[in-house]
Amino acid sequence: MNLPASLLEILHTIFGPGACSTHDAERLAYAYDNSRRNALPDAVVFAQEHAQVEALVRACREHRVPVIARGRGTNTTGATVPVQGGVVVSFERMNRILRIDPDNRLAVVEPGVLNGDLQRALAPHGFFWPPDPTSSPWCSIGGNLACNSAGPRTVKYGSPRENTLGLRAVAGTGESFRCGTYTSKGATGYDLTRLLIGSEGTLALITEATLKLTPKPSGLRTLRATYRDVSSAAHAVARIMAQPVTPCALEFIDDVALKLAHDHGGGDVPLAGAMLMIEVDGEPDTLPSAVDAVSHAARGEGLEELRVAQTSEETQALWSARKALSPAQRTISPNKINEDVVVPVSRLPELVNGIRELSRKHNVLIVTFGHAGNGNLHVNLLPRDDAERERANACLAEVFALVIALQGTLSGEHGIGLVKREFMPLAVEPSALDLMRSVKAAFDPDGIMNPGKLLP
Amino acid sequence: MNLPASLLEILHTIFGPGACSTHDAERLAYAYDNSRRNALPDAVVFAQEHAQVEALVRACREHRVPVIARGRGTNTTGATVPVQGGVVVSFERMNRILRIDPDNRLAVVEPGVLNGDLQRALAPHGFFWPPDPTSSPWCSIGGNLACNSAGPRTVKYGSPRENTLGLRAVAGTGESFRCGTYTSKGATGYDLTRLLIGSEGTLALITEATLKLTPKPSGLRTLRATYRDVSSAAHAVARIMAQPVTPCALEFIDDVALKLAHDHGGGDVPLAGAMLMIEVDGEPDTLPSAVDAVSHAARGEGLEELRVAQTSEETQALWSARKALSPAQRTISPNKINEDVVVPVSRLPELVNGIRELSRKHNVLIVTFGHAGNGNLHVNLLPRDDAERERANACLAEVFALVIALQGTLSGEHGIGLVKREFMPLAVEPSALDLMRSVKAAFDPDGIMNPGKLLP
Repeated sequence: MNLPASLLEILHTIFGPGACSTHDAERLAYAYDNSRRNALPDAVVFAQEHAQVEALVRACREHRVPVIARGRGTNTTGATVPVQGGVVVSFERMNRILRIDPDNRLAVVEPGVLNGDLQRALAPHGFFWPPDPTSSPWCSIGGNLACNSAGPRTVKYGSPRENTLGLRAVAGTGESFRCGTYTSKGATGYDLTRLLIGSEGTLALITEATLKLTPKPSGLRTLRATYRDVSSAAHAVARIMAQPVTPCALEFIDDVALKLAHDHGGGDVPLAGAMLMIEVDGEPDTLPSAVDAVSHAARGEGLEELRVAQTSEETQALWSARKALSPAQRTISPNKINEDVVVPVSRLPELVNGIRELSRKHNVLIVTFGHAGNGNLHVNLLPRDDAERERANACLAEVFALVIALQGTLSGEHGIGLVKREFMPLAVEPSALDLMRSVKAAFDPDGIMNPGKLLP
Repeated sequence: MNLPASLLEILHTIFGPGACSTHDAERLAYAYDNSRRNALPDAVVFAQEHAQVEALVRACREHRVPVIARGRGTNTTGATVPVQGGVVVSFERMNRILRIDPDNRLAVVEPGVLNGDLQRALAPHGFFWPPDPTSSPWCSIGGNLACNSAGPRTVKYGSPRENTLGLRAVAGTGESFRCGTYTSKGATGYDLTRLLIGSEGTLALITEATLKLTPKPSGLRTLRATYRDVSSAAHAVARIMAQPVTPCALEFIDDVALKLAHDHGGGDVPLAGAMLMIEVDGEPDTLPSAVDAVSHAARGEGLEELRVAQTSEETQALWSARKALSPAQRTISPNKINEDVVVPVSRLPELVNGIRELSRKHNVLIVTFGHAGNGNLHVNLLPRDDAERERANACLAEVFALVIALQGTLSGEHGIGLVKREFMPLAVEPSALDLMRSVKAAFDPDGIMNPGKLLP
């Protein structure tokens, strides 16, 4: 598909020659994301202000041309791949922190601000914004909001839906609007803010966000527990979450992942049946009792070793296994299938054991690790060739069926995008999907906003 | 309006003779809520199970008859007053706690469960559900969800939108659906859960809720600070919220309210320019440093006395002023105008001083008190006769204008209902109101769900 000349002319007028391109180089660079899927857009534009975004959506709506919002393309679901062509609007140049307001515990940012840059800017004020995806140095706040992206801290501090006060946006109708508040509480009409968060650019384009900040605890202690097997570790997670001290990170890594990280990341990584990384935070005088409480819960059947880091170097060393994981997996399987299913915490042992069985049954290498305190496991299938890829896909369908049977859901933090939309009917019943489609039609009557994503 | 005979027959079949009434006694009893507005419904039905609710909505939709959900009618905005007649569906008999699941930190309840009954049932498990309206002994969870009702603890623990995982409901289309998850994290499609919370029964009827539970801290300390004037106290609130220890209650009471409570509630209530009630919670060994931190912030220009309760009897005594407030106001003005505006915390001094001026300008008695840690103030206008009531209404419009000018919004926890819908355009711009109307149409195409509420 080529864009109509009249639309191209409007795009050039809106964005100027340096921020609107139909060159192959740009189109290729914005054709893919971290899902490794790709499809060429017809044009790429770089927004810098709200008025441009409004004009873009209006022009595209008039011409019935798709608009695909893009932060930094770190998502793993294909949510930013322009499968039906159209215009990719990159927010990487719309990246100002407009206001940091510690007195009201909020920050106002443009969508292109990088998560890591925001955290650095907040630190001197004694605050942080809780969502912390592993891609934090490179991913944008707009992308975090679009996908409800979370990370390890979510177990204590919540996801973007719990940490956003308000938004400015342009709906698929071309109408600009503000929703939410500048206050920490509000009961003034429907919650459009949370509706946009996690909608993956299918309803509206976010041009400004008012984020709720949390005071940064001054103390942190890191623990590492290794277990005889995955099942023992999964039971320990359930015990830790059933007592009152909520850790600010509770990460699980299985034996296969540990071996991989050990082989690629160096000798600091223990070889064990499974490992938990546990962090507690708070004012310094509260930490000893918090460490005691989580240590007590971590102990039990199958524990091999429990270490508490005494220095920040030791903390770094304890985290080395977790950090080495992603690159290690890519070396085995460049096209790894990267899932992030979630189940109620007490069902984790069944999930972990069930996945182990499916790995054997389908003869596919699977590593599991992730944010166990939320019951949110990254289930990564690592096929090495086409035959294995076919088996992996069959296995994946059974993984999802298992998750649903355990009262879980398809995604904890990656979202649905392109790659999981066919599985949506497993998790969401037809009547709720119909309501989602009606909501979509209300915001985007012509279906131009990121078509082919999220809804089956 | 009388109900069509065919609809009445269906209602009798669905609910049986003991749970479906058109008698005047029942109609009168369900005609009003705590707003003291009233309008007679044509029939009252008492739901006990989901299937009845689905059948009810389908029948009412077919006959184009309004359906008004009602918990216990404690709301103050007229949200449950059947202004266009129709069928009031009371959930008071659908009040089972279906599951308490401490391992997964969740409870599944029917909408008629009383907030206080739930808290009592959770206590032996070491958990609580954070939303705690003052009406907690008599208000229902369904009502709390419909209105996003909060309370003092919200400043630390959030409102129903931050404490609900999933819902079962019947949309205005008559379709049943489930939304949300049984997990503490999810990124699987649009967030219909939060959309229903705070929608005041205008989109769907909630028949089951999965609530996120929080471990009950084992320690609590209560502080009371009195100040020379309201402005000093408001500045202290902003200082307290700008430091890292978040109190679990931070309540403000102005001089007029203190005097009222003193006169009606006894001598324990101090007479001062303004008062703050501050609570901190946590594990016992964390409390001394928390008390120090908030005490330090509470001190400053205008502080008169700072007391820390040493026993639970002293804590009770410190709270006596707050508890005596509502009955005291009713004795002066049975038709008090009860608002719950909210502004960013740092703007509280301007709000408090501005309201003081408006009270003088319009010669209307106003008391202000409430959840200052969220910037959420109850602004109660207390007209004693018709002339004062007219002045109070004029004053109210200026109060709202002031709140909006301070980047605040109309309601922090009461919602909009009947009494504030005409003011919605002050807080929500036309394009966002249009989107809300489109969302309403998606859920309730025939406009039968609680008509005349929330949206202007």
